[in-house]
Order: sequence, then structure tokens, then C-alpha cells
Amino acid sequence: MNDESDLQNKKLFEMISSDSFAKFMGIKLESLKPGYARLSMIFTKEMLNFHGIIHGGAIFALADAAFAASSNSHGKTSVALNMNINFISAVQPGQKLIAVGSEEKVTRKVGVYRITVKTVEDELIAVADGVVYRKESMLI
Amino acid sequence: MNDESDLQNKKLFEMISSDSFAKFMGIKLESLKPGYARLSMIFTKEMLNFHGIIHGGAIFALADAAFAASSNSHGKTSVALNMNINFISAVQPGQKLIAVGSEEKVTRKVGVYRITVKTVEDELIAVADGVVYRKESMLI
Amino acid sequence: MNDESDLQNKKLFEMISSDSFAKFMGIKLESLKPGYARLSMIFTKEMLNFHGIIHGGAIFALADAAFAASSNSHGKTSVALNMNINFISAVQPGQKLIAVGSEEKVTRKVGVYRITVKTVEDELIAVADGVVYRKESMLI
Amino acid sequence: MNDESDLQNKKLFEMISSDSFAKFMGIKLESLKPGYARLSMIFTKEMLNFHGIIHGGAIFALADAAFAASSNSHGKTSVALNMNINFISAVQPGQKLIAVGSEEKVTRKVGVYRITVKTVEDELIAVADGVVYRKESMLI
Repeated sequence: MNDESDLQNKKLFEMISSDSFAKFMGIKLESLKPGYARLSMIFTKEMLNFHGIIHGGAIFALADAAFAASSNSHGKTSVALNMNINFISAVQPGQKLIAVGSEEKVTRKVGVYRITVKTVEDELIAVADGVVYRKESMLI
Repeated sequence: MNDESDLQNKKLFEMISSDSFAKFMGIKLESLKPGYARLSMIFTKEMLNFHGIIHGGAIFALADAAFAASSNSHGKTSVALNMNINFISAVQPGQKLIAVGSEEKVTRKVGVYRITVKTVEDELIAVADGVVYRKESMLI
Repeated sequence: MNDESDLQNKKLFEMISSDSFAKFMGIKLESLKPGYARLSMIFTKEMLNFHGIIHGGAIFALADAAFAASSNSHGKTSVALNMNINFISAVQPGQKLIAVGSEEKVTRKVGVYRITVKTVEDELIAVADGVVYRKESMLI
Repeated sequence: MNDESDLQNKKLFEMISSDSFAKFMGIKLESLKPGYARLSMIFTKEMLNFHGIIHGGAIFALADAAFAASSNSHGKTSVALNMNINFISAVQPGQKLIAVGSEEKVTRKVGVYRITVKTVEDELIAVADGVVYRKESMLI
């Protein structure tokens, strides 16, 4: 990459990192490349549900943030149409979760992304697929 | 219903209302009946994403809470296996969202639920389907 | 409707009815209106799986045909991006299945559809949601 | 593997290969191992839809057959609860499609599977996730 694309990537990284809901959830963007994003979140006690395990909504928030980051990683505004998630394993409060979003396929108008959520010990917590509609406008 | 089932419903309502993540998100259980739940959430500025619209994770959190409440409404411990969500319309910060979870079908071991998220003006924001595995254990 | 839209609807009905795979599966278009379609299929022995019950692929074929018919019912070319199906009840060979596709929401570029598959006795067999991308081109 | 497990695998392979709907669709089981299955199907003209491209129902039939084969590959009766499919690329009639089902996670009662459908040139046609409920009974 040249200096210009480096600068563009830095701006995209900052923009995606500025997400209010991600901050509210303690979600952190760790890596961003075209078609790829890695994010992390600490599972806190506020994320427990009435069963005493992590709320599906908290796992989804992290997965969805990875979906948004990876699908907007080309700089083209991409909005979520559909997300399908399978909840696989429970986790303990205090654990750090890692979500990776990666591109299955992108055309001019739509994109399909695969998202995995794992513990740092590589245990699979959830898998998801997402579909975006790609607008004509650019993010930055 | 007799006094005993009234008491059981009241206990279930309190237990489901005690959900930590729902409180964190400002989600409120408004109605609970066997196979049915209605919940509400005010869309706050903390829920914005980097596009400046509501984060899919915030909409999902409300939808998932409605899924959990409706699927556990019989008092049998039900855990989410799968959730599929379609994002339909954007909303403005400050708006109140209403999610309704209703049972499509329940057998001894699994259940399928339909969740809708709407504004108070009845505009459709998202639709979702969820599948639970029903354990042998009771919630209360 | 005037004569012109009647003629257009008749042409659309014929075009959608000409679907090769639908014919191969014995799927019949019964009703078509803007945003709505009803189709039927007889569950034959060729549709059994190795468990001796109806193959999910056969139920899906009917559901997908209802999805395609309802989403193309406005005459604008609509192609499937995503389909999510929940299998709810088993059926007996010889039974007639009815699938209904109905529009949840349509914008200029995308549409979301709800599909139900039932027996003629109104027993729910499967529910599905589908997302289409709407092209600029018209079908006829 | 010893002779006994070889025999069991051979019986499972034959049972899954005997699927009526798979035969009707020209779907062929090519490889079966615990948690894994590979199947193929020739895309014929009977599988065209009214757009003149392959019907989503035909792609799904192959994907669902791979889901069924991989999820029943341990010999324990597994029935499909949910399947989510993303349609990615179109194919030409006459092309051979390869579907692979692989296990994401299996517990005593449920399993999650990933299915990919590709051309023999390795072009991605569709991706799917499926969830099964695992019964107590064995297939053979």
C-alpha cells in the first residue's frame, strides 16, 4: 500500500472505532483490512441474562460490530439487511471474546460476510452470516 | 387462571424483568403471557453506530429480549439456538420501540418464535425468527 | 384495476407459472397479487428423505417458489439474496401443501418477504423469511 | 478404524445414498466421514426458474442434502430445525455443483453445520448454516 491508501485506512479505522454503541458495549476494533475486521469485547456482569449466562444480545452486538466493520472496510457505505446467528457455547463473565468478520463475496450492490465469535482460547461461541446492501456513497 | 397460576406468572414476570442486560439497555418487560411477550426500549444516543443510525446490535438486543421472554413464558428453561433478523427501517434517536415475541410452534424439546420490532406509530423496524432448545428444568 | 393492469397481471401469472423447476416439483401457482402469492404442491414419494419423512429440500422448493412469485409480483425483476427457514412439523406423503408469500416491506432496491407452508387443514409445516435485491429491469 | 466401524460407515453411506429426493434431484453422495459429507449434483434444465437461472430451490436441495448427510454422519438420528442460505453467484446449466457439509459444533442434543456450494472450478455459489436436533435413536 502507498501513503494515500495508508491514510485512508487510518481514517476508516478511526471512523469505525468512533461507533457509539460499540463504545457503550466496550467493543474495541483491533484490526481492519479490506474485507476483514477483528474486534474484542470483555464479557461483563451487565451482559448477564435472567438465566445467569451471557445474553444473546451481547454476543450479537460484538458479532454485528464485526459485520459492520468488515463490510464497510472498503470505504463504501454498507448497511445491514440480514443477520443469522447460531449460539454455540456459553461463556463465563470476565472472559474476553474475539469476533472476526470476513468477506465471503462482494458485488457492486451486495456483500455476504461470515462472522465468528470465539474466546481467546479459541473456543467457538457463535457463528453468523450477514448480508449488506452497498450504497453508492463513500464513508469518508 | 386460579391464584396459583397468577402467582407463578407474577414470579416469572419478576424473574424475566430482573435480566441484567435488559436493564443495561433500558429494555422493559410490559406484558407476559404463555407464548407471548411485549417489551419496549427507548432508542438513545448511546445506540448510534458509525453511520449515525441505530446500531443493529441495539435493535437485536430488544428483539432477543422479546424472544427470551416469550420462549420462557411457560416457565420451562428455554435457551436460544438460532436467531435470524431482517433490518427493515431506520429510526430516530429518542423514539420508543416495541418488540413482540409470539410462539409459532412449541414441542417438548424445541420452539419457534416470531419477533417484530415496531415504533409506537406501528412502523416495522425489524422482523426476526428464533429457535430455542427447551430443557427439562423449570425456571422457578 | 383497469384493463391494462389486468393484462399485465395475466402475463406475469403466465410467466411465473412457466417456471421449469416448479413444474418439475409439481408446484402450482394459484393466486398472484402485488406483494402476495399462493402456491400448492402435492407431497409425493419422490420427496421422501432417508429418514422416511419429507425432505427439507422439497418443503424449501415450495417455500422458495412462493418467495419468488410474491417478490416478483410487482413486475420488477427481484433476485433472492437470503432465505431462512424453520422446519416445524412433518407431513404424510399424499398431502397437499399450501405456501403463501407476503411482503413485509419493499423499498426501491430491496424487499423482505414472509413465507408460510401449511397443510390444507391449516397445520403449520414451515415458516421462512426471504430477502431480495430488486433490479432496475422489468420482467415483462 | 477397525472392521466394525468400517462396516457401520458403509451401512450409513448406503442408507444416506438411498434418499429418494436426492435421487430425484440427481444428487450423489461422494464422501462421508464423522462430521463431514461431500455431495454433487449436475445442474439440469429442469432446475431453471422463470428468470432463466438456476432455481434457489435446486441449490438448496443440494445444500440440504449435504446438511442431512453431515449431521447424520455419526449414526445418530438428526432432524433439521433451521437452515439459513445466502445465494452468492449464478451458474450455467450443465455445470456440476459440489456441496460440503461440515460440523461447527455438536452437543448431545443439538448440532450446528456449515454448508458450502461451489462449482468444480471452486467458485462459491451459496453458503448455508443449519441446526439439527439430535434424537436418542440411531439410524442403523
